[in-house]
Amino acid sequence: MTDTSELVAQLADRVQLLEDKLAIMHIISAYGPAVDSGSAEAVAGLWTEDGVYDVDTGSMSGRAEIESMVRSSNHQSYIHGGCAHLVGPPHIAIDGDTAVATCHSQLVLRDTETGANRVARITANRWEFARLNGEWKVTLRTNRLLDGRAEARDILAAGVTATV
Amino acid sequence: MTDTSELVAQLADRVQLLEDKLAIMHIISAYGPAVDSGSAEAVAGLWTEDGVYDVDTGSMSGRAEIESMVRSSNHQSYIHGGCAHLVGPPHIAIDGDTAVATCHSQLVLRDTETGANRVARITANRWEFARLNGEWKVTLRTNRLLDGRAEARDILAAGVTATV
Amino acid sequence: MTDTSELVAQLADRVQLLEDKLAIMHIISAYGPAVDSGSAEAVAGLWTEDGVYDVDTGSMSGRAEIESMVRSSNHQSYIHGGCAHLVGPPHIAIDGDTAVATCHSQLVLRDTETGANRVARITANRWEFARLNGEWKVTLRTNRLLDGRAEARDILAAGVTATV
Repeated sequence: MTDTSELVAQLADRVQLLEDKLAIMHIISAYGPAVDSGSAEAVAGLWTEDGVYDVDTGSMSGRAEIESMVRSSNHQSYIHGGCAHLVGPPHIAIDGDTAVATCHSQLVLRDTETGANRVARITANRWEFARLNGEWKVTLRTNRLLDGRAEARDILAAGVTATV
Repeated sequence: MTDTSELVAQLADRVQLLEDKLAIMHIISAYGPAVDSGSAEAVAGLWTEDGVYDVDTGSMSGRAEIESMVRSSNHQSYIHGGCAHLVGPPHIAIDGDTAVATCHSQLVLRDTETGANRVARITANRWEFARLNGEWKVTLRTNRLLDGRAEARDILAAGVTATV
Repeated sequence: MTDTSELVAQLADRVQLLEDKLAIMHIISAYGPAVDSGSAEAVAGLWTEDGVYDVDTGSMSGRAEIESMVRSSNHQSYIHGGCAHLVGPPHIAIDGDTAVATCHSQLVLRDTETGANRVARITANRWEFARLNGEWKVTLRTNRLLDGRAEARDILAAGVTATV
């Protein structure tokens, strides 16, 4: 192998890693717009077929359950009254064909009586990904309320101590 | 063409796309700091000469109108009382020399009497870009309040269903 | 030098710059998860040994003082009551082995009596970085409250006018 072709092979690996990081950002940045527009299939399509979305109030397994959440009367009342699921910039660690992203999210809800917005939830997020057939998908997203519970702090700590 | 030079050409295309995505992020991440510091020319300079900023309360056409908004007594009272225009991580789709980015924004305002902050607005954002003379600029930004109106959900849905 | 090897050298520089930008994002996106989980060493490790964290209420010099802030009873009461240090997407300017990133942050605190969240602080952030032994570290982070004071606007203006 010549020096140039070796350098090109190394560059290709570095570019692939950059693309992987932007692909993870692309998925996470789709969640808020998809869920706040009631795009149930687009939300569920971020996960693998049997992906899990584990939130404080229960766990959804597979795309059908995630779609049901988006179509639920509870979620529909949020989006028709005014809401924003704000997901912060993720801290990403990629390891071959799997990845973990750690971030915060906020749920802002509008009070339909007064028109005032309030921060209804602040949440610790852990997103786990796998690359399947060349495409990144969420295998497990775990959300825990930042209300003082240790579980939420544990999620955040795990995301940074492994990679800083 | 040798194998190596072909691979290099492909790599150059992939690097260009990564650069384009970061350039779009760079523009969007400038908006909040520019507008909250009253940097009227820096705000307007994110747009093309005849770019449009379409918000619920009206539409600004061209840089002069965007600068006027920043210099308006209304906006000046926000920034001198305390405010934050928080723009979330964008979901970006690039197609050659045009691009669309979809995200949320929040306006947090400080009450100058009590010193308390409130989330005055939650907003759906659609940013349209064009590459002109090698530089990305905003051609149209459309903001709609997330207060239950269908238009805001439509903006968010369009941004994710086209690209997920 | 052949045309191909020249092109490869140019590509390598472009890839390096992209990696640098993502490295800066990686550090900034670690702050919130680290500080909200009380990971004192992970927080302090984002800075250089003698790095400075300058906030409205005072300035911390060196990692030991930053760790002390995380371990302080004040900060511990925040994280055990429920809080989120939300850091927005940074606007990044890299110049060789130094970099500046400008963004907003928000502190959301949960009221332990009522369970309600409030936006306790909105803040202008300036992060200065240096590359040391191939690794980016924070040399100075300056935070100023967006409560109308000119200093906060100055921080934001400096970050965008230099790079737009």
